[in-house]
Amino acid sequence: MPSFRSTSASNSITFRLRLDNIPGTLAKAMSAIGETGGNIGAIDIVRVEQNKLIRDITVNTGGDDHIEEITHVLNGIEGVDVMHWSDQTFIMHLGGKLDIRSKVPLKSRDQLAMAYTPGVARVCMAIHHAPDKVYKLTIKGNTVAVVSDGTAVLGLGDIGPEAAMPVMEGKAQLFKEFAGVNAFPICLATKDVDEIVETVKRLAPTFGGINLEDISAPRCFEIERRLKEELDIPVFHDDQHGTAVVMAAGIINALKIVNKKPQDLKVVMLGIGAAGTACTNMLIEMGVTNIIGADRSGAIHRERTDLTKEKMDYALRTNPHLFSGSIHEILQDADVFIGLSAPDQITVEDLKKMAPNPIVFAMANPDPEIKPELAYPHVAVMATGRSDYPNQINNVLCFPGLFKGVLECRAKDINMEMKMAAAYAIAASISDEELYPSYIIPSVFDKRVATKVAEAVKNAAYASGAARRNKK
Amino acid sequence: MPSFRSTSASNSITFRLRLDNIPGTLAKAMSAIGETGGNIGAIDIVRVEQNKLIRDITVNTGGDDHIEEITHVLNGIEGVDVMHWSDQTFIMHLGGKLDIRSKVPLKSRDQLAMAYTPGVARVCMAIHHAPDKVYKLTIKGNTVAVVSDGTAVLGLGDIGPEAAMPVMEGKAQLFKEFAGVNAFPICLATKDVDEIVETVKRLAPTFGGINLEDISAPRCFEIERRLKEELDIPVFHDDQHGTAVVMAAGIINALKIVNKKPQDLKVVMLGIGAAGTACTNMLIEMGVTNIIGADRSGAIHRERTDLTKEKMDYALRTNPHLFSGSIHEILQDADVFIGLSAPDQITVEDLKKMAPNPIVFAMANPDPEIKPELAYPHVAVMATGRSDYPNQINNVLCFPGLFKGVLECRAKDINMEMKMAAAYAIAASISDEELYPSYIIPSVFDKRVATKVAEAVKNAAYASGAARRNKK
Repeated sequence: MPSFRSTSASNSITFRLRLDNIPGTLAKAMSAIGETGGNIGAIDIVRVEQNKLIRDITVNTGGDDHIEEITHVLNGIEGVDVMHWSDQTFIMHLGGKLDIRSKVPLKSRDQLAMAYTPGVARVCMAIHHAPDKVYKLTIKGNTVAVVSDGTAVLGLGDIGPEAAMPVMEGKAQLFKEFAGVNAFPICLATKDVDEIVETVKRLAPTFGGINLEDISAPRCFEIERRLKEELDIPVFHDDQHGTAVVMAAGIINALKIVNKKPQDLKVVMLGIGAAGTACTNMLIEMGVTNIIGADRSGAIHRERTDLTKEKMDYALRTNPHLFSGSIHEILQDADVFIGLSAPDQITVEDLKKMAPNPIVFAMANPDPEIKPELAYPHVAVMATGRSDYPNQINNVLCFPGLFKGVLECRAKDINMEMKMAAAYAIAASISDEELYPSYIIPSVFDKRVATKVAEAVKNAAYASGAARRNKK
Repeated sequence: MPSFRSTSASNSITFRLRLDNIPGTLAKAMSAIGETGGNIGAIDIVRVEQNKLIRDITVNTGGDDHIEEITHVLNGIEGVDVMHWSDQTFIMHLGGKLDIRSKVPLKSRDQLAMAYTPGVARVCMAIHHAPDKVYKLTIKGNTVAVVSDGTAVLGLGDIGPEAAMPVMEGKAQLFKEFAGVNAFPICLATKDVDEIVETVKRLAPTFGGINLEDISAPRCFEIERRLKEELDIPVFHDDQHGTAVVMAAGIINALKIVNKKPQDLKVVMLGIGAAGTACTNMLIEMGVTNIIGADRSGAIHRERTDLTKEKMDYALRTNPHLFSGSIHEILQDADVFIGLSAPDQITVEDLKKMAPNPIVFAMANPDPEIKPELAYPHVAVMATGRSDYPNQINNVLCFPGLFKGVLECRAKDINMEMKMAAAYAIAASISDEELYPSYIIPSVFDKRVATKVAEAVKNAAYASGAARRNKK
């Protein structure tokens, strides 16, 4: 009987097998793979040898152990030999994932004379005389730098700038794919705050915006703050604000379902690193006053004596009733739980203590603060960071459209009004008729979202004075 | 009678005209444009209004004065009205000239799971554990930074990093178009040598090579030297070495035509800035010993007391016979003149003083040291930097193929052996049968050149120990 196993395309493996050319051999191999829980996709014939068939079988697996297990059981079948296997994810990464190319053909001398010398000189001088034209006549107007120092990559920690490259390339792919924005990875060989700030400032002539990515806290706060102050192009730390925007969109829609208002909520926020702090700021902007942050030691309040400067700042603008105690204690009568911490931090008992119709956003990755299967019977609305459950809080709903809007109006900054506009636009992309507890967040593949976010951000940029391009 | 005028596609203008819908009106307009020397290309009907035809006429012009003249004469014709005109070179530049995009589709959740989270995490960790894999699994292995501070852009001088962007984008287009190499413009908001060096070093994780461009002398020497010492990826200042490689290729072939040997030559080099110095170094490497550099004060020799440090270095390794005097004096009995200076520096009289079968490379841009029309009767072989004369010394023959070879073998440096190999490969792309005084340099559109240069550079990198990738 096949064992259940969580498999994924991200662990898609192609096994090259040499099979005896005898009816039934392939079937035996396939059923053996199935027994291990492997999910068989494409089957191809590579070539025929004397009495042998060489086949490629692509299998979604559960990872390294599973691959080893499949190899082992296949080699144990008479007439089956695993020649080698290849990993589809690595094959996809060969040579990198980005292509930089000319938008115009350069096949004739005339084309060359316009794109390069001598024609290009007139374009250079036009920019030299009217610097604003750089937005129109170069890629600057539609190009974002995805900047990382590799210190907080996904959940992997400080793996260095080279190892961070695949993530930053992936981010750049998403910018173009979802919003038509050029983005280029810049992975820096320094972790020093001053050096990162000055390096990004020196790169600014090429770019229309800076997307900071996977830079560890608390350095990320200072880097973002200083760059925002010192640069005239917009700066956005996606790990903070992208997450906060999409979370806010989810809360906006969840509140419609449970019919509660921001000012009446008790919100508990577990994990107040970069993303948790940004989420808190957006909730405050939405009108939530009673937010209790929590770290490993429990509720954050201004009377605690063990707080860092960042946490004391946090305490001073949250928890007005000075709740104290463990996460389990402070969840009593809470309307909303937001987790940006670690797996399995809260229990079903905690959920039962919450106010009626609790909203639970358990966003720890890859494993949430409580398993959705356990939580579902006890919550009104649940969201996670995972793509395999409903309501995925995924930044890709925000950053492509947000930067598209920002670049189109040449915003000098990405302010709170623009982030709130993005959140409301994401929320509004699900109509009231469509809204449902398992559908408060649109699909990442809903291409209309980026367009709506861009429009809303642009309008907010004009309304708040951040836009620099004259309205047409 | 039509006036003669030098027109170019780089000054291609589209005039939008409102014409009386009466036979003969267009003909009048066209002949008026022809009278001014304008070169008419496409003629399109835009729309028909009552009794009027709106037409676009595209004309290669000689520049601003000519555009004004055409507008004036057209408006003087009864029934013709110039509504506006647009510049094809500027239209080509709208939105920038580069496109950054995903090499793989991201249309399904499975594709996203491989290119981005969660699959990308395994690729990151593979690089973290074996840093060399960054060359294989990211764009680093095939991506060059085109770095400039905008201080010496074309012949335009210090126009700043924003105004330099169109040139660097054009360069990046050429890298992809001619050799399939990704290149990205990095225009820096600093002119400080230390800051440029440290910034480029911090960017190194993303790139497989650094192409320095349009950085003014003498700062470019120190920047290149320090980056070569301190980085483990190859660094190449194209204005110096690209020019020198293509010049050397031209000299190699020119010597075949006049049947002379490097060691027997007297070479006069006018202009010993960045490019002139690099050209001299390559000629020395080819075996030329009698090279006399010259600046505005005449021959450079070690007994001059007005020399900068750079020029004294130059004097110490050239001009062994201590020639002195003006450029006109030292051209006496010279076999080769190489100019990288300014327009109209030498005369027909000077050419007549040279040794039999003189070789003249007058590479000042856009106007050479002597007009080719004047020089042709008195020289055996002539080359310039211009695309509208034979034998254009154009760097695009070198840098795309050179970097392709360098990246393919993961060379840590671009050494003299590799540059010489590139020069011989460019020269050899014209067979002895094809060789002709007006065909010593292949066409920039000869796509075979980049492939040949790449192969030759790669072989030289392996032979000289610069290559780091194991030979397959």
